[in-house]
Amino acid sequence: MTDRLTAQMAFLHEADKLKNVNRATLVRDSLRRENSAEHSWHLALYALVLSEHAPDGIDPHRVIKMALLHDLVEIDAGDTPVFGDFDATAQAASEQAAADRLFGLLPADQAADLRALWDEFEANQTLDARFAKSLDRFVAPNQNMLTGGGSWVEYNVTFDAFAERIGKKVDAGAPRLWSWLKPRAQAFFATLRP
Amino acid sequence: MTDRLTAQMAFLHEADKLKNVNRATLVRDSLRRENSAEHSWHLALYALVLSEHAPDGIDPHRVIKMALLHDLVEIDAGDTPVFGDFDATAQAASEQAAADRLFGLLPADQAADLRALWDEFEANQTLDARFAKSLDRFVAPNQNMLTGGGSWVEYNVTFDAFAERIGKKVDAGAPRLWSWLKPRAQAFFATLRP
Repeated sequence: MTDRLTAQMAFLHEADKLKNVNRATLVRDSLRRENSAEHSWHLALYALVLSEHAPDGIDPHRVIKMALLHDLVEIDAGDTPVFGDFDATAQAASEQAAADRLFGLLPADQAADLRALWDEFEANQTLDARFAKSLDRFVAPNQNMLTGGGSWVEYNVTFDAFAERIGKKVDAGAPRLWSWLKPRAQAFFATLRP
Repeated sequence: MTDRLTAQMAFLHEADKLKNVNRATLVRDSLRRENSAEHSWHLALYALVLSEHAPDGIDPHRVIKMALLHDLVEIDAGDTPVFGDFDATAQAASEQAAADRLFGLLPADQAADLRALWDEFEANQTLDARFAKSLDRFVAPNQNMLTGGGSWVEYNVTFDAFAERIGKKVDAGAPRLWSWLKPRAQAFFATLRP
């Protein structure tokens, strides 16, 4: 039991490093960059509060667990801003290597369980993964609207580009959330570009 | 549905402010103060990984939800360092008022559900709450051992004071975790006070 717990603690200690990975989005009031650990908390809270708006058949607990785990690979692979330029193939390979290393710190059975949950999230095929992914895409626009435009301003994004690149993905797994967000984002973009 | 979602979004937007509440503990590597949002993520991850070491009968999902919600009241009431001096009665009143305001942003049925979960955590009587509380007490010592002593150094804490003030609380709801931590903390304190 002690060896097992010691392995789990190595994983939890390593996870602390996610607090040092910064994202393109900003934090309300302080307007500093948000880190991926506090973002993961916020996403899990979104999942807890908003799962009633998910398509029928999702399991909110699995979605919350995906939210807690979804960005851990950024400890090694870093965050890629969604409107930035990056090599998607290289990034995916880097994230797979990170998942091998990080989940590999856990006892083998638990490593397999949690890795499977992260793989499911990444593959974006099941109802739970599709809702979790859509929710992840839904959070940043809300964050941008709270912080004067945030990464939209930094990357000079238009509403049409946002709707094409992000809106479609929110709509894919959480259509009710996109219906709510779309008119609000459209009105917000109009204030950015009068 | 839209009104309901708009109320939920007001809550989730307000929750962003937890990222600006700083704790006494430090973050690994950067050695900046940890904020309560990223701590809440880390605690939820501890719950996800370590629930097999909880006493029989706990529900890991409820513990994770408690972890996500447990510090929200600090948005209004602030964080009280466990080794600092503070007026516990005034702090408790301030946290109750914060819970009224924050959970009150949600639709009434959901506000009641999530408030009940936070009240249960605070009351520290059920198995789930006792494990969640003990886990919360278990995280900071681990964080301190990763960061050269952290708040133990700042508040000039001895091993005996730590064992009395924190160890007993970890032991109360998570005795297996205290058995693991106790010898490690004792060895660590010896390096602080040669």
